[in-house]
Amino acid sequence: MKPTSNDFQQPAGVEICEVGPRDGLQNHPTLLGVRDRIELVERLSRTGVPRLETTSFVNERRVPAMAGADEVAKGLARSPGLRRAALVLNERGYERLAAADLDEVHVAFAASEELNRRNQNASPAQSCAAALAIVERAHADGRSASVTIAAAFGCPFEGVVDPGVVLDYAARVIDGGADEVVFADTIGVGVPAQVRRLVAGGRACGGRVGVHLHNTRNTGYANAYAALEAGAQLLDASIGGLGGCPFSPGATGNIATEDLVYLLHGEGVSTGIDLDALIEVSIWLEGVLGTDLPGQLHRAGGFPPPVMTTASRGSKR
Amino acid sequence: MKPTSNDFQQPAGVEICEVGPRDGLQNHPTLLGVRDRIELVERLSRTGVPRLETTSFVNERRVPAMAGADEVAKGLARSPGLRRAALVLNERGYERLAAADLDEVHVAFAASEELNRRNQNASPAQSCAAALAIVERAHADGRSASVTIAAAFGCPFEGVVDPGVVLDYAARVIDGGADEVVFADTIGVGVPAQVRRLVAGGRACGGRVGVHLHNTRNTGYANAYAALEAGAQLLDASIGGLGGCPFSPGATGNIATEDLVYLLHGEGVSTGIDLDALIEVSIWLEGVLGTDLPGQLHRAGGFPPPVMTTASRGSKR
Repeated sequence: MKPTSNDFQQPAGVEICEVGPRDGLQNHPTLLGVRDRIELVERLSRTGVPRLETTSFVNERRVPAMAGADEVAKGLARSPGLRRAALVLNERGYERLAAADLDEVHVAFAASEELNRRNQNASPAQSCAAALAIVERAHADGRSASVTIAAAFGCPFEGVVDPGVVLDYAARVIDGGADEVVFADTIGVGVPAQVRRLVAGGRACGGRVGVHLHNTRNTGYANAYAALEAGAQLLDASIGGLGGCPFSPGATGNIATEDLVYLLHGEGVSTGIDLDALIEVSIWLEGVLGTDLPGQLHRAGGFPPPVMTTASRGSKR
Repeated sequence: MKPTSNDFQQPAGVEICEVGPRDGLQNHPTLLGVRDRIELVERLSRTGVPRLETTSFVNERRVPAMAGADEVAKGLARSPGLRRAALVLNERGYERLAAADLDEVHVAFAASEELNRRNQNASPAQSCAAALAIVERAHADGRSASVTIAAAFGCPFEGVVDPGVVLDYAARVIDGGADEVVFADTIGVGVPAQVRRLVAGGRACGGRVGVHLHNTRNTGYANAYAALEAGAQLLDASIGGLGGCPFSPGATGNIATEDLVYLLHGEGVSTGIDLDALIEVSIWLEGVLGTDLPGQLHRAGGFPPPVMTTASRGSKR
């Protein structure tokens, strides 16, 4: 029973994309001005996150939280080891991203007809094709391009979404040349069984696979763990769990970056992220927003990672 | 990609023990009177939970939240399909449990010296032996007996707890005749790597294994999922996530029973529990306590379980 050596097998690496300044703020009741949002992305960039969704280039009248996106995007200088990304929904958005000289474009459409029609006034197939046109343009400009399939776990209007339909879109996305396909649990209804199914199916398409998880029903971190086990290469997360769910008023938003990093470091997964620095950003952000954030680590405090004395992950698979 | 059949493999069953009336209330800032606590256990008993920790028989001066434990325990009639349990820490507590005619005894001690000395004024080895004496007495009386090892994932005073030490106690517990050993993450610091290690080690001792998880750092549900994968037979949970952490003021408590059941049903695991009925109890309890509970399902609402069209769990192991 006594420890002899630390032979716990480290899982393959996983990349974290910080989406607080985009998805987090977009769904938060408090609107932050350009200056605060620039300070947020700057503070986050210093924690060691490898990828940062700085903003989204969308219609300011429809999404007031993203007003001044061009200034925010231009406010963060290029830096080695950090990919500065933003979300766009159309060619006009991509042009703004290019003008801001960001490194990477994120495009999204919903797997369910009703949600995609309401958000983008087009069918999912049309939006998928439009996304792939932006991917092609980004590649021609030397930028990487990631495509997110929203409502991949469930739709607020149509209910359960068939994973076969989602994976059909994933195949189109990968075949169409995107660097990555991301399955988004937009309304936070997903369970690990779905994560395993989508991540395995996405990987079978031959592409790089990520997941974007909300913790609306407290399954977000279990889903992240299931994604890690299933071989996902990217996990989106939001500082402090910043955000909400437009379809579940009062519900919490994305999984919190620092809580996720705590879990990953405990699993022996290196992220390159300074956990204490992340916690400091969360505490600062609570002050700026004047509200509590749903992440828990910044309140409870960290704890040293466990010492594993026998391989348990490695031995069972 | 189209669904052909639902061949998702259902994992082995797992039992849920509802601990809200004991661990939840014991760590909650609001004290409930005997009448409300009896109504709570009665409402919970009607949701289909198979096991219910109704109270703890401890010193009322040290734990005012458990005052009137005898009345609470006697207030819940014997019923088929429900094991009425309570926590005791010594022989005197067991005698009160026996007088209340409960079906099962739960005994606990801490794996770390400092925490156990503060709580029980004895070494862990001494408390382990005392627990086994109570197990023997319970068996002689025809009662089942479960032993919980507290601070099995970390100690507020000693930090990281060596899993080898915890598993050494687990072996003593199983060898000593307990029906079950439960690893408790008393301060909510655990990660899935630890869960895998402890559950696998506990099962190797030949006993029935459970976990008692707190969601203090948002790892609780991921840990529950890891425990399920590792073959744990019991998961403790608390209605609405009722409770707190005596060492992390403001932190949330146990994993919420309804949020856990949502995850399990999504995995295809049968629990025998009526999820809607659980959510109703949470909403009722928020009214009684006059505070929000940290569980999220009762706010966000349920969602139909996913339809799995290809085995992903079964195919990978």
